[in-house]
Order: sequence, then structure tokens, then C-alpha cells
Amino acid sequence: MKPSIITLLTDFGTRDHYVASMKGVILTLNPRCTLVDMTHQVTPHDVEEAAFLLANSYSCFPKGTIHLCVVDPGVGSPRRAILMMAGDYFFVGPDNGLFTLVAWREKIEGVIALTHPRFFLPSVSATFHGRDIFAPVAAHLSLGVKPQAFGSRMEDWVKLRGPQPTRREEKLLGEIIHIDAFGNLITNVREQGLSEFIRGGSPVIRVGRRTLRGIRKGYWEGKTSEPMALIGSSGFLEISIRGGNAQKALRLKKGDKIQIAIEKGR
Amino acid sequence: MKPSIITLLTDFGTRDHYVASMKGVILTLNPRCTLVDMTHQVTPHDVEEAAFLLANSYSCFPKGTIHLCVVDPGVGSPRRAILMMAGDYFFVGPDNGLFTLVAWREKIEGVIALTHPRFFLPSVSATFHGRDIFAPVAAHLSLGVKPQAFGSRMEDWVKLRGPQPTRREEKLLGEIIHIDAFGNLITNVREQGLSEFIRGGSPVIRVGRRTLRGIRKGYWEGKTSEPMALIGSSGFLEISIRGGNAQKALRLKKGDKIQIAIEKGR
Amino acid sequence: MKPSIITLLTDFGTRDHYVASMKGVILTLNPRCTLVDMTHQVTPHDVEEAAFLLANSYSCFPKGTIHLCVVDPGVGSPRRAILMMAGDYFFVGPDNGLFTLVAWREKIEGVIALTHPRFFLPSVSATFHGRDIFAPVAAHLSLGVKPQAFGSRMEDWVKLRGPQPTRREEKLLGEIIHIDAFGNLITNVREQGLSEFIRGGSPVIRVGRRTLRGIRKGYWEGKTSEPMALIGSSGFLEISIRGGNAQKALRLKKGDKIQIAIEKGR
Repeated sequence: MKPSIITLLTDFGTRDHYVASMKGVILTLNPRCTLVDMTHQVTPHDVEEAAFLLANSYSCFPKGTIHLCVVDPGVGSPRRAILMMAGDYFFVGPDNGLFTLVAWREKIEGVIALTHPRFFLPSVSATFHGRDIFAPVAAHLSLGVKPQAFGSRMEDWVKLRGPQPTRREEKLLGEIIHIDAFGNLITNVREQGLSEFIRGGSPVIRVGRRTLRGIRKGYWEGKTSEPMALIGSSGFLEISIRGGNAQKALRLKKGDKIQIAIEKGR
Repeated sequence: MKPSIITLLTDFGTRDHYVASMKGVILTLNPRCTLVDMTHQVTPHDVEEAAFLLANSYSCFPKGTIHLCVVDPGVGSPRRAILMMAGDYFFVGPDNGLFTLVAWREKIEGVIALTHPRFFLPSVSATFHGRDIFAPVAAHLSLGVKPQAFGSRMEDWVKLRGPQPTRREEKLLGEIIHIDAFGNLITNVREQGLSEFIRGGSPVIRVGRRTLRGIRKGYWEGKTSEPMALIGSSGFLEISIRGGNAQKALRLKKGDKIQIAIEKGR
Repeated sequence: MKPSIITLLTDFGTRDHYVASMKGVILTLNPRCTLVDMTHQVTPHDVEEAAFLLANSYSCFPKGTIHLCVVDPGVGSPRRAILMMAGDYFFVGPDNGLFTLVAWREKIEGVIALTHPRFFLPSVSATFHGRDIFAPVAAHLSLGVKPQAFGSRMEDWVKLRGPQPTRREEKLLGEIIHIDAFGNLITNVREQGLSEFIRGGSPVIRVGRRTLRGIRKGYWEGKTSEPMALIGSSGFLEISIRGGNAQKALRLKKGDKIQIAIEKGR
């Protein structure tokens, strides 16, 4: 029998005991479970960032993996707790849009409202549902409890509108949605949308005060210390500097705009 | 047979190879052991902080878990190395008070001085007992070596006096003992002590220049950007801001005082 | 059968999904594999630092462990990908010198160029070979694929020249190669080289504006707030302050020089 895998994605940081407490709860119920950290350094309460990071990594894991995601600014409020089944994966977390980008890519097989307290810890705090509700639900799921046992199906789960690129006149307008540890500026412009827009033409990209021409194939094509545009490993357009840090060099931040046009006369 | 679990709590950070070296030593002796990080970002040499984080998480783990704790400013000095058995858990680390808060909550079944070098690495450095003494002892313990094999029982293990709240006239005086990654200010005032002090009255809390009235049930009850007091998930009084960062807003730090009185005429 | 162990050492940080993606790829191929983080906080693109951290920790792990190292400033360029067998361990990563310090210590049993794409992910990006090439190769290796199946033997793999100490007149000249989370300043002067230089004499060490006499046996011998020299747990000369932070106190940085002389007339 294959061991069960549960991944954990939170904004709890790694300085406190919060993540370890969740892992302890899971291992108490299922000591054979394999636990993998996605990241715990999501910007606190940033559901969009968590949705982006999850969308870039969930499908690297084996089918059947349980992705436990707790970025939960509404903890203790009437926001619901959900289990989503999509693409042969399980997603457990608060109903606040965390799974929106997954839902864009996968067929949703069902969403369950987590309402049966027999799968929660005996005493549920108002401030730490990661430990008291989501961790034990994920552990029970890893032990083979059927999704429908946790509650009823629901349809009206929360979706992020998400920062989607828009068209205006002859331009494609996007924005920076994530900056990684190397300072790469990752935008919401996806490879497919970009190539449909470009249609074999030559793109001119404006970001901050810079104008970049063309799309490179990899970091190695860029000149040292000169920003370039390329399609990153997650399939999004990103602005990078070979061997350098684009964020520091360009002084840009999350939410800053990017504008793409097609060069004429070429 | 259930797999053995060893948790690791240190102030080694995650930039260096120190934690990995400890894990390598453990896996060399017991390759089937499950390793879980509590945190490695305890403020360097801060035994009190480590004791607090351990006390908040150890009991989430299955009975029999071995908690390996290395915050060890006295490494290389004559300070002793100990194994404590308490509440069906094992605690391994330097004898400097790390397990004080656990001892407040659990019946101590025994404390052993780790003196038998056959359970250490063959060569013990003067600077890294985490790798050379504590990790191999924890690994041998996970393989079923009996506690008494590691050394003799002792009674005079070190206890932190700890920052306990005090009463002065009609006030309860506490202090901030930990600030978590969300900026929540966690105090040494415990739920039970607080309710014995309040006795159904209405508390007025002074912290920094602010006065807060009442205890909220969860973050969600607070108004955005207004500090509130609540009992956090670890059972301590904490000062928080819904969706915000209380540390930044109130400019408070670890060790700052908190004062609780009962409101009159209500 | 012993479980396979794969360690991961990267400069990917822990804020992004990159490390988790690599782990997912490995667990998809070998769900029983034990994964251990060395560190992911190597200074971006700093191959020398990664080589140092790897050299300090690889041998703590059981024989047969696969060490997967991805600090890869040349990703997407023609730099090669390699598997090194040395000291009963396996080392997988880009051919940029990462394994130089291991090679100083161990007999090299062979180096293989990773050229057979059937062990890579079906689609290899130009920017993330950690996920697309190195992780699947390590996973196949952990499943028992023979080293020679991955490609041909090679001899001309890249070696760092490394910052080795030099002799000038009657002085030994070294430099700071790593600063750990405690602020300990670790130099490239190794225990053996130092004792061959000293030959029982009394060393005088100049670092920054300070002169330190003698080598302490452990942190505990130093006076509080006074810098001291000692041989650290990795076998290198380091400058430390008992209970303090030598980096902050001495305001030194990586690359700064250290000079050792023998005291006369003693």
C-alpha cells in the first residue's frame, strides 16, 4: 500500500509552533502519513498568493495527495470549511478562494462543506482551525474516510476573481502577482494567453520605466544585469535578470502593472 | 508497529547545516524514524522562548513521541544533559530549564542524567552537542533503549522561574512572552488564572498606551485595525488586531508589561 | 529493506513552491523515499557556500544517501548535469563545482554525465532543472537504477579552486567563508593545516581590528562579549563570542581576511 501524502501550505511562518502542532495532530491520527511542507511563508492573510503557489505545485505530487491549505483571515467567522476533489487530488481548507486557480485547470469532481464535528478535535478554538479542524480532517481523509462523510456537497464555494490580464485597444495589460526568492517578477500573463495575443509578432513589454523586446527562452540568454522577459517554470511571463535580482534592480512590487504591445513594421 | 517520531526544536536557524547534521545522525541509527521540525528559529540562546514553544506543541503529538530540544547556551560547560519522561512523552536536551513549562502541566515520571558515552557519537565536540550527544541519544531511545540505560536518575534538574503573572493590590500584572509571525502579542497570563481573577467581572487591560475592555472570543469579533484581547489557541491571553499586526501597530516588544483590572460600577 | 534517503540543498528559499515541486516529483516516482532538507537558504547562486555546507553535513547521513544539490546559476546554459559517487554516497546536481569539497575528502568512485532524457520529466523547462532533471534522476537512483544507466563516465568535471589558505613569509593567511546563524565567523583554515602551521607554538590571530591569542576548546572558555578563536564543529577555525554574535560585534563579512602568526619568545 502506498503511503498517504499530506502537503501543508500556510501563512503561519516557521518561527512559531503552529505548523508543528498541525503535524502532531495529523501524526496522532495517522502515524504513517508522509508530510511535505509547500511553504509556510505566504504573506499573512494573502489568499491570492497562496492560491498562486498552490496552483504551481499541487500537480507535481502523486495522484491522491491531500493538499492542506490554511491561509485563513476569516478564522472564527461564519466562513465555511471545505474539501474539494479535483484532478484526482484533495484540497482541504477554508472557503475563501484558495482553490480558485486549481479549479481553472482541473475538472472539479465535487466540493464538500466540512460540517461533521466528529472529524474535528474534541475542542475547537476560535483562532486555530488549522490544528482543530483542517489537520484532523486531512488525517481522517488520509486514513480512507470517504469525502461525503465529512458533510454535504455544495456548489456555491468562493472563487477569487483573481487578477486576470485584460485587453485594451491593442495592448495586453497584466500585473506582477508574485516575486520569488531570486527577485524574479512573476506576472499573471500565461504562456497560452501571451502567444494568442502575439500571434507570431514581436512583443514589446513595458514594466516600470523599462521597455523589453522579445521573449527569451531561459535565464542564460540574457545579458548580465539587463532585465529580460521569459516564460518561467510555472508557465507565466516573468521579468528576470540573469544571475541578478530583478526586484531590486527595477524597484517593482507586487501589484505593479505590465503592458504588452506588438511591434509594428517588423 | 508504529513508527517512532522525533521532533526537533532548536535555535540553529535553517541557513546552516546544523539541523541536517542532527537528522543525518538520527537516520544513520534509525532510518525508519519520522522527523518533525518544531521550529529552528528560536531567538538564539533564548531558553524561555523555547520552553514556551515546546509547551504549546508537545501534546499535539502521539504518546511516545521524543521531543529533542537544543537551545544550549552552555554547550561545552559543565551543564548536564538530561532525558525527562513526562506525560508519556520523552524530552531530551540540556539541563537548563527547557522543560520547565512541560513540568508544570505533566506528572514527571523521572529525569535521567545522560552520562553513558556509548550512546554518544564516538568523538564529541565542545560546540555541537546537538549532533554529538542529543541526536544519538534520541535515536537510541527511538530504537527502544530503556531510559535508565542512559544514566542515573536525578532530582535537582534546573527549573526556570519563568515570568509568572503577579497580583498587586487589585491588579493582575503580566508581560509579553512571545510575539508570533502574525504580530500577536502573547502574554504569560493563562486562561484559568485570568478567569479566577476576573470572577465574572469585566476586565480592563492596559498594554503600552492602550486600554482594552473585555475579552473577545476570536479574531473575527474585533474591528479592523483596533487592538483586542482574547485567549489564544495556546490558552494564554494575547493582544491581536483582526487582519493586522498588533506588534507593529502598538510598537511593543517581548518583556513589555500588561496590567489587568476589574471595571467597577458595572 | 532500508528506506532510501534523499537530502535537498538549494538556494530556492522556502517562500516559493520550488522545493515542494521537487519533492512532489520525487514522491511521485518513489513514494517511500525519506526526504531531508539540508538548507534552502544558500545565498542565491553562491556555489562556494553550498559546497561548504554540503561538505559539513553529507557524512552525517547513512551510507547510500543521495545528496541532491541545486545551486545552479547556469541553468539553461550548456553546463552539464552530473552524478558523483564518492565515499558510498551519491551526489546529484549541476557540474559547477558544488562537490569540490566532498572530493577533497573522499575517494571519487566515478562521475557520470546525466544525459539520458528518459530519466527526466517528459518536458524540461529552461529555468527549473531542479524539478525537471535533478529531482527525477535522484528518485530513479533511489529506486535502484544503476549510475551508468544515466549517462557516460566523465573525468573533466568542474572543480572550484576554492579559497584555500596561503602561506606568506611566516604567516598563514585565510578568509571568512561562512557566517552562521549565531554570527560565528567560519574561516577556510582547517584544524589539520592550523596545527601543522603552529607546531605546538602559540598562535596570534588578526581579524578585522582585533588580535586574538590562543585557540579555545569551546565557547564556554571565552569571556562574555570577548571574541575568541576556536575549532568549530566542522573542523574549521572560527571566531566566536560566548553567548554573543561575533559578526555584529566585529562588523566583519564573508571574504574578510584572517592572519595567523606564531608568537615569539614564549
